[in-house]
Amino acid sequence: MEIKAVLNEAVATPDPRLQQLLNHALTGGKGLRPTLVLLCARFGIHDTVEVRQVATAIELIHLASLIHDDVLDGATVRRSLPALHCLYGTVPAVLTGDYLFATAFGLLASSKKAVLTTVTEAIRAMCSGEIQQLTAAVPDTKAYFTYIGQKTAALFSAACRCGGILCRLKRPQQNYLARFGWHLGLAYQIIDDYLDLFGSAQRMGKPNRQDLARGILTLPVLRFLELSPEAARWQEKINRGLTAAEIEELIAAARQLNCDEYTAAIAEEQITLALEALDKLPVSPVQEELALLASRTLDPLQEII
Amino acid sequence: MEIKAVLNEAVATPDPRLQQLLNHALTGGKGLRPTLVLLCARFGIHDTVEVRQVATAIELIHLASLIHDDVLDGATVRRSLPALHCLYGTVPAVLTGDYLFATAFGLLASSKKAVLTTVTEAIRAMCSGEIQQLTAAVPDTKAYFTYIGQKTAALFSAACRCGGILCRLKRPQQNYLARFGWHLGLAYQIIDDYLDLFGSAQRMGKPNRQDLARGILTLPVLRFLELSPEAARWQEKINRGLTAAEIEELIAAARQLNCDEYTAAIAEEQITLALEALDKLPVSPVQEELALLASRTLDPLQEII
Repeated sequence: MEIKAVLNEAVATPDPRLQQLLNHALTGGKGLRPTLVLLCARFGIHDTVEVRQVATAIELIHLASLIHDDVLDGATVRRSLPALHCLYGTVPAVLTGDYLFATAFGLLASSKKAVLTTVTEAIRAMCSGEIQQLTAAVPDTKAYFTYIGQKTAALFSAACRCGGILCRLKRPQQNYLARFGWHLGLAYQIIDDYLDLFGSAQRMGKPNRQDLARGILTLPVLRFLELSPEAARWQEKINRGLTAAEIEELIAAARQLNCDEYTAAIAEEQITLALEALDKLPVSPVQEELALLASRTLDPLQEII
Repeated sequence: MEIKAVLNEAVATPDPRLQQLLNHALTGGKGLRPTLVLLCARFGIHDTVEVRQVATAIELIHLASLIHDDVLDGATVRRSLPALHCLYGTVPAVLTGDYLFATAFGLLASSKKAVLTTVTEAIRAMCSGEIQQLTAAVPDTKAYFTYIGQKTAALFSAACRCGGILCRLKRPQQNYLARFGWHLGLAYQIIDDYLDLFGSAQRMGKPNRQDLARGILTLPVLRFLELSPEAARWQEKINRGLTAAEIEELIAAARQLNCDEYTAAIAEEQITLALEALDKLPVSPVQEELALLASRTLDPLQEII
């Protein structure tokens, strides 16, 4: 994939220690966000080099945020490998994240102002979402959507809007692309949260059931707490911290109340909204490719249900 | 000071929790780096709004790096106040740093490409300096200069170069400004390290003798280890971790060997180099102001020696 080459070039450094950290940070990943930039830019005439640089920058920002998140969550595994901070320590990990942020903005330096403001807005949303999450009172479905919007959908949406800006789409069409990315991002995060609860650790490349163990309530759990006659008792247990056995019990109970199917349906609903936004854009082969990419995000659900 | 208003405007957010974190991050500080941008831009015709935005962005980057550094060093006091992470926790502190980085790049979005690349290069230098510092073998004076160059002088130099870019100075003149900032930054850090060892905690707004307690060897200590007949014994003690009494003993011994005067002389040498670079620029009232600012960085030394 062409992005990989730009990524490697962007993080080339004469310092062997730093290079080691950066190489680890770049290992694996599906490259979904840069793909969105590349595809969306194909709606019009664009400068290939500039598009690739912006796509790479967005991936670097994503990687930087993963590194910082893993430090802050105390996560130990990422993409089937030990998290960066576990191998090299917290200090190098935070600094590597900062270095990647700076590298990303270096790549964005030659791009349009609108690209830069779109990306910085997305990062601000990501940070402020994480900060709000820390102090959120009793979470509900509305707060969940706000949170995953900032945490995940904002950067998906920015990636798509940047593609639109770079190929000189008109503002309303940029907005449709941004909306497409937004709903796709929400669906993507809902599916991630679904798999964390109902999927297998092996398939995810990281330990699952982490959210619940940390007391973070995702959509299927929120649904369960809405439906279960024993919600109050479960909420108490969650606050106290669940044992592994209790987590299994909760998951079984949630399945009984069809919370898995409900969550899958909500993800599908978001994909429908994404496709609706896409329909407003000029008919083109790119539109079809984006639609296919969107539909495929649902694939992991089919493999499990 | 006009920068203060742009700073406050840049970090205005509807989220009260985040606002609280940002307000704390912005409290205090001498605003030396933004002052350098403002002054250097006065060598030519410039857009005042743009200059103010770039100056503010550079201060935000400095503040973000202080927050991350304090988390990573486990520092407890900054600018006579508790460090952000001590009041609000590590997670919000790291995220606030990230948020400030993004805000800074938002401010830089409308500026020239050369400004953006200058600033991103400085951040990369800052991060890579910190990472190298972690694995540095036995440090010597050369390694010390490389380290403080990346840690401090790079951003001072970038601030001055940005001022020069913004007022459309020719490249060689930008280079002289950058060189001025570089030597000023080195002097500033050497004085900071001097005060950490020989100054009073009250005057610094943070506990002193922190570097030595953490085993970080700054210029006066490196000089002491060069001169002392008991260097090997002291190096061993430092590796093991010094007690408060041992730190006092080392400082007294370093004074006896004139390591304080030596360090002050090296700082003065850097100021001389800064002024030499300044002399290459067109004679103007700004030149005098910058020279005055540079000379004043040495003031804390006069108060102590």
